[in-house]
Amino acid sequence: MNIRYPSGKVYNGNGNNKNKRNTKLSSIQYGNRGMTLEEDLDITNKFYLQENIAVIHKKPTPIQIVSVDYPQRSAAVIKEAYFKIASTTDYNGVYRGKYIDFEAKETKNKTSFPLSNFHDHQIKHMRQVVKQNGICFVILMFTLLQEVYLLPAEKLFEYWDRKNNGGRKSITREEIMEHGYEIPIGYQPRIDYIKHVDEHFC
Amino acid sequence: MNIRYPSGKVYNGNGNNKNKRNTKLSSIQYGNRGMTLEEDLDITNKFYLQENIAVIHKKPTPIQIVSVDYPQRSAAVIKEAYFKIASTTDYNGVYRGKYIDFEAKETKNKTSFPLSNFHDHQIKHMRQVVKQNGICFVILMFTLLQEVYLLPAEKLFEYWDRKNNGGRKSITREEIMEHGYEIPIGYQPRIDYIKHVDEHFC
Repeated sequence: MNIRYPSGKVYNGNGNNKNKRNTKLSSIQYGNRGMTLEEDLDITNKFYLQENIAVIHKKPTPIQIVSVDYPQRSAAVIKEAYFKIASTTDYNGVYRGKYIDFEAKETKNKTSFPLSNFHDHQIKHMRQVVKQNGICFVILMFTLLQEVYLLPAEKLFEYWDRKNNGGRKSITREEIMEHGYEIPIGYQPRIDYIKHVDEHFC
Repeated sequence: MNIRYPSGKVYNGNGNNKNKRNTKLSSIQYGNRGMTLEEDLDITNKFYLQENIAVIHKKPTPIQIVSVDYPQRSAAVIKEAYFKIASTTDYNGVYRGKYIDFEAKETKNKTSFPLSNFHDHQIKHMRQVVKQNGICFVILMFTLLQEVYLLPAEKLFEYWDRKNNGGRKSITREEIMEHGYEIPIGYQPRIDYIKHVDEHFC
């Protein structure tokens, strides 16, 4: 079983994983903007909320609590807990009555997006959402290229199945450019994905 | 600031709160069935998922992580963390493309449902969902009466505003019976709330 950071990245116990990162505890800079994709999406979602455009929230990181200490007249302190694997995607919410569900991932690669960023249970969840006519996609960022794409879940399933049938373990940047939609990084909102939902899902 | 258990109940530091309960660490029985409302809803949601009726999940309890220990080649252990107040409701998901959002609460009272079970930020979130045309409601259980009701969020807002205007701090059972919909507790699904969504929201 993989252990995950709150960011969703796999925890590598030997400490030598160069991708190791925990956005809750420390922050890494991408490109020259000093913001993570998660932070950009948080700001975007706050903007959507304030402007009554959509109500989208990131789900809390699932934690298995083992031990809690209750000091007198003070806050309960969790003394032992473990990260659990999320059974769904990180983001969901409502846009004009419609259900929206997505996962957001970054890569430092420049030519392809590794499918190892996703997991069986997440793909399964996304298939369930699509079957229920929810709007479902992934937001993929090439951090070093400063490029962000929205890729519909149905397309992701094709690449996922290709991998499971012995094909390549990643999606090429060209495939993402062809079947996804580039979201320019802006000021407000930072990553205006709802615009693409409007154009391509509604 | 109130500190909450994963169940959403307020933590009372002096240990004398007879309502004190933590469904993650210990379980309390209601009525003679030995199940909590949360457990019943979990089983109901699993049934909906298996039968492709709806995709509804309970959100993880939000936790503020302060300290994590990383033993070699082993799971990361959270050594210090605190419960955060949820900024949304506990349950959401998709039914036939539509966004569904609800909160579920129990009371041991027999004649009225205390509004202290809800909080400003949750009401605010529900208002945002309703404004975005999401399907939004609360599931209210009188545990000692073994009665479960679905009350549309718009009705809850009325009672909430009445309280804020100096009115009573609870909703009477009669009001819930008049403006809500009773959900009989069944075998499979246990609490068939989607049926009422179909009848009253679609």
